[in-house]
Amino acid sequence: MTPRDTHRRPVGTAGPVLVVGTGLLGTSVGLVLGAGGVEVLLSDSSPTSLQLAVDLGAGRPVATMGAEEPRLVVVATPPDVAGAVVVEALRLYPRAVVTDVASVKEAVWDDVRKESEAVGDPGLAARYVGSHPMAGRERSGAGAADADLFIGRPWVVVAHPGSSDAAVLAVRTLATDVGAVPLEMDARTHDHSVALVSHLPQMVSSLLAARLAEAPTEALGLAGQGLRDTTRIAASDPRLWTAIVAGNAGPVVEVLDALQADLGDLLEHLRAAAEEGPLLGGSVGAVARLMEQGNRGVARIPGKHGGAPQRFAELEVLIPDRPGQLGRLFSELGEMGVNIEDLTLDHSSGRRMGLARILVDPACARGAERELEARGWTIIAHADGRDH
Amino acid sequence: MTPRDTHRRPVGTAGPVLVVGTGLLGTSVGLVLGAGGVEVLLSDSSPTSLQLAVDLGAGRPVATMGAEEPRLVVVATPPDVAGAVVVEALRLYPRAVVTDVASVKEAVWDDVRKESEAVGDPGLAARYVGSHPMAGRERSGAGAADADLFIGRPWVVVAHPGSSDAAVLAVRTLATDVGAVPLEMDARTHDHSVALVSHLPQMVSSLLAARLAEAPTEALGLAGQGLRDTTRIAASDPRLWTAIVAGNAGPVVEVLDALQADLGDLLEHLRAAAEEGPLLGGSVGAVARLMEQGNRGVARIPGKHGGAPQRFAELEVLIPDRPGQLGRLFSELGEMGVNIEDLTLDHSSGRRMGLARILVDPACARGAERELEARGWTIIAHADGRDH
Repeated sequence: MTPRDTHRRPVGTAGPVLVVGTGLLGTSVGLVLGAGGVEVLLSDSSPTSLQLAVDLGAGRPVATMGAEEPRLVVVATPPDVAGAVVVEALRLYPRAVVTDVASVKEAVWDDVRKESEAVGDPGLAARYVGSHPMAGRERSGAGAADADLFIGRPWVVVAHPGSSDAAVLAVRTLATDVGAVPLEMDARTHDHSVALVSHLPQMVSSLLAARLAEAPTEALGLAGQGLRDTTRIAASDPRLWTAIVAGNAGPVVEVLDALQADLGDLLEHLRAAAEEGPLLGGSVGAVARLMEQGNRGVARIPGKHGGAPQRFAELEVLIPDRPGQLGRLFSELGEMGVNIEDLTLDHSSGRRMGLARILVDPACARGAERELEARGWTIIAHADGRDH
Repeated sequence: MTPRDTHRRPVGTAGPVLVVGTGLLGTSVGLVLGAGGVEVLLSDSSPTSLQLAVDLGAGRPVATMGAEEPRLVVVATPPDVAGAVVVEALRLYPRAVVTDVASVKEAVWDDVRKESEAVGDPGLAARYVGSHPMAGRERSGAGAADADLFIGRPWVVVAHPGSSDAAVLAVRTLATDVGAVPLEMDARTHDHSVALVSHLPQMVSSLLAARLAEAPTEALGLAGQGLRDTTRIAASDPRLWTAIVAGNAGPVVEVLDALQADLGDLLEHLRAAAEEGPLLGGSVGAVARLMEQGNRGVARIPGKHGGAPQRFAELEVLIPDRPGQLGRLFSELGEMGVNIEDLTLDHSSGRRMGLARILVDPACARGAERELEARGWTIIAHADGRDH
């Protein structure tokens, strides 16, 4: 059986949709909705970025802000201006549902709440539901946009108690339209969660990599995969991350405080070991406790690299570097009745093929593998989730 | 042209070689030397581990310690007993060169120096040269041993001022026999270097993963690739790492102290931001400084994940899961005159094929790619080292 060459996903979002901010996320949203036949309007403070998104087929430029009537506004600006842009959109488009994709949610909701109170109109806030699509790439900007960007990724839908059902549904539909997995969470839980699983790793990776800035070259020659893995995200964009972390300072301080306490305890014992010898100094116990707690922590991360027994089987599938191939894979897995539990993509620039690592129920892994091969996919690895 | 099925590497080491400790490293050394026709004797405090190494073909059990006459002794025990075992070997085998593979070198040298002074024989110390092969896998023990383990990896050769030329040459030959790249370094420089590029990342990864041990499950559901990468090595063996870090406590304290100071500075600014708002608190500057220094640090790591402009081109080659395929790839690259600058292997259990990422001179990358494909290899990606 020859695989189909393209596959158009049915789209439930009702247009027109206005995307404000044509960076990586906004342009990717425009590409998916446009391909599904939705009318997409685009705006960006940078005419160059806007033109690039238009040329890529993500939509058409909005004529004048406020002059058209979008039913949904997606604010995909940098996080430090997201709140102000959401409030402006709620004012300009009194019938539109408004969402934003900023990675910190309490600050945006604060701006919406204050505006709603100031104008004395709870209906204004009712049309707002926040989003946080957990998708990204090492490259940013419209040029890195991809209709497959959100496939299989979590999309956190952050409603507040006053959000209307219609607004929640519109945002949940947007998430499923782009192929993401919607998760509902309140803003406070979201911000504390991302402080732990996203902002803390970023700060820790940067603290570690910062130690290399002045290190002797001969030391760097001994770098292995462990250092490469732990510092990979330290190459991230300082401007973007400064806005993210500063916007979530409270929860980030809480998790960094706890890490600092553990570090202080470790240092105290290691200092004694350095002075009095490892057995007298008690460092053996301190290092072992830390390593064991680290073992327990990493085992709780869902997905491939979590060590410890996996709940899911893993398939590694080669993705030819032609448009729509990842979407085709997901559609075919759907036709086969296989549920995707998690996905990681290895998709570096210059690569002719991508590598999709897919976690599935172990009960259907072997069948899925056989059927994918019959459909022409190349499976380069499988792990049944039991033996390691 | 059909690829040859096997390729025997010529081996320069003169036997018999005694390997003390038949874990991952010792058994792998035995496999390579044995395949090259060298007589390999094995010993281990665990009869089960010894028998497994013998069954795998790594050598034969030594009859009685001290009864045979090895020309080279490789001590591959856990690091906390390496010094004592090296001293015992220097005493038992008065004509043998002795090396050890422990990942901390000053402590072993201290034991050798003290023994040499105690017996008043500088000739004893002259036969000792330390080693640190920078190779490892997520699994340990003889069962994970692999004749390809050391290929393309750095092998630090740690001579002291009294080491004989013959001892240095014997250890350098061992390193090249197993396919590693020998690097010479004194013990103090080595220990400070690994504190920075190996022990610090391990402690930082464990400190980060330890924060997940008691975290809410909903937060872990938002985990992405960044958290997976930064915590992957937190799944490492606590017993092994306790011995490594406690044995190098002085240099580890130095690098952890510097990191703690940076963390304290970051926390002070973020706390002000949490209380007074991001712009008043000055946290924007503190986060940006840290991120930028992290960018600079990660750019200095040689190899693929170092971000920033690469000096080398990268080829990703599929390695069929049959014995000797990685060795064959390296032999063929050698025949083609292509020099390997760096290598990372992606070789998870259950995978049918491995993935070798090879860094080469950009000038010969395209030619190498064409010739490898002509020889039947599958190249799944290439990056020319200029455009990202």
